[in-house]
Amino acid sequence: MRAKPIAIKVILVEPAGALNLGSVARLCENFGVDELRLVAPRCDPDDPEAKRMAVRGAKFLKAAETFSCLLDAISDCRRVIATCGRIDHGTIPLNHPEEALPWLINTSKESPVALVFGREDRGLTNQELLLAQKVITIETSPQYPSLNLSHAVAVVLHELNRSQRDFSTSNPKDKLSHQPASPVELNECLEETKELLLRVGFLLDHTAEARMTKIRGLLQRAEIRPEEVAMIRGILRQIRWAIKTSHS
Amino acid sequence: MRAKPIAIKVILVEPAGALNLGSVARLCENFGVDELRLVAPRCDPDDPEAKRMAVRGAKFLKAAETFSCLLDAISDCRRVIATCGRIDHGTIPLNHPEEALPWLINTSKESPVALVFGREDRGLTNQELLLAQKVITIETSPQYPSLNLSHAVAVVLHELNRSQRDFSTSNPKDKLSHQPASPVELNECLEETKELLLRVGFLLDHTAEARMTKIRGLLQRAEIRPEEVAMIRGILRQIRWAIKTSHS
Repeated sequence: MRAKPIAIKVILVEPAGALNLGSVARLCENFGVDELRLVAPRCDPDDPEAKRMAVRGAKFLKAAETFSCLLDAISDCRRVIATCGRIDHGTIPLNHPEEALPWLINTSKESPVALVFGREDRGLTNQELLLAQKVITIETSPQYPSLNLSHAVAVVLHELNRSQRDFSTSNPKDKLSHQPASPVELNECLEETKELLLRVGFLLDHTAEARMTKIRGLLQRAEIRPEEVAMIRGILRQIRWAIKTSHS
Repeated sequence: MRAKPIAIKVILVEPAGALNLGSVARLCENFGVDELRLVAPRCDPDDPEAKRMAVRGAKFLKAAETFSCLLDAISDCRRVIATCGRIDHGTIPLNHPEEALPWLINTSKESPVALVFGREDRGLTNQELLLAQKVITIETSPQYPSLNLSHAVAVVLHELNRSQRDFSTSNPKDKLSHQPASPVELNECLEETKELLLRVGFLLDHTAEARMTKIRGLLQRAEIRPEEVAMIRGILRQIRWAIKTSHS
């Protein structure tokens, strides 16, 4: 199907239900996922209910690494797709799975890629969604759109599998050659930006977060590249220098 | 989305797990299924575990009609698709869901259509498979192909939903509602950026054009919006002010 397997990390943020956790572990084995990662889980991977649901995916529970925040969990991943149950998300455009998932695996690089799923009750926060380059939503009935967590994982992994199947036929080269900046790089760059914007008075303490969210959304939509992150840091450095030297 | 709704019957043959039964009821509500039917169930739709998993799909459990054999359960359905986990089925050709499902709903008749799912452990018998016009299988990892029943239902209902969706009309709404900034607006913003970057020494006369091309490329990839152009101009204004006032 594909030339060489891309390591796919399935990341659950604060999963609360042991049944769900076990079900997702089974799906990881069903669909050839590389690793299951947990961010601040609210249930125990050792729970007998989780093991019961995992069946032959139990090894994913055993091996699951736990992280304290999403940024840490995706720090080695270049391409990240988050999932969102809500329709009205303003900052990052929502995609159908079949639109965004081919992008996730259309990469020749060795970096792993990540699929992020939120809490059973509240999904992912906007801050968490903004750590991904793309956000997908599964279309469901408006009467009751809320899918069970493991069903959302099933649909997305199936769609990814379908994308991999079609992958051999077409892959535009220019897309292959551009890797987005790593989440950590981008985060550092945004922190530096925030400092400067506070200093020049564009941001005030009470507006900082909302405005930085907008800037992050813009850069994520662009799938900003490492060399562009470097360019922005160069600009920030030069502006700081200009402010400083105009003092003297 | 579709002109007139086709009544979709989800039929479970001898389901044994109350958790699965409840999960499937939830999925029926998630995906606008018309009715859940049970053939000789080996668990009780009234089981508290089933209700717990069904959440807002509990009415499907309550309304579920029970039949003694599959033929009775599909007697009013014209088009029937059965699901099969095994790869080596000789008698009826296996289809990918996306190949067969459009056929299921591509009908002007008022007859309901049926999706049939087999037992958790053994699936459907060959006799049962032969009651359907088409048989679909979900591609999974050869290492562990066996999907949990409710995950198979999730994937198939999602695929059916995808088939029903007319791409031209139902792209996610927020993609449509965001207009990119006008070329003139963007151009003015980039001119202003260039002036400032020359002033702070990030651009030199001989590098200006190449670097501004990169910045423009980044913003174009993001399909920058009018309000984001305004934000950037606000940042530029504030930086100019900071440089100026630090003089005095």
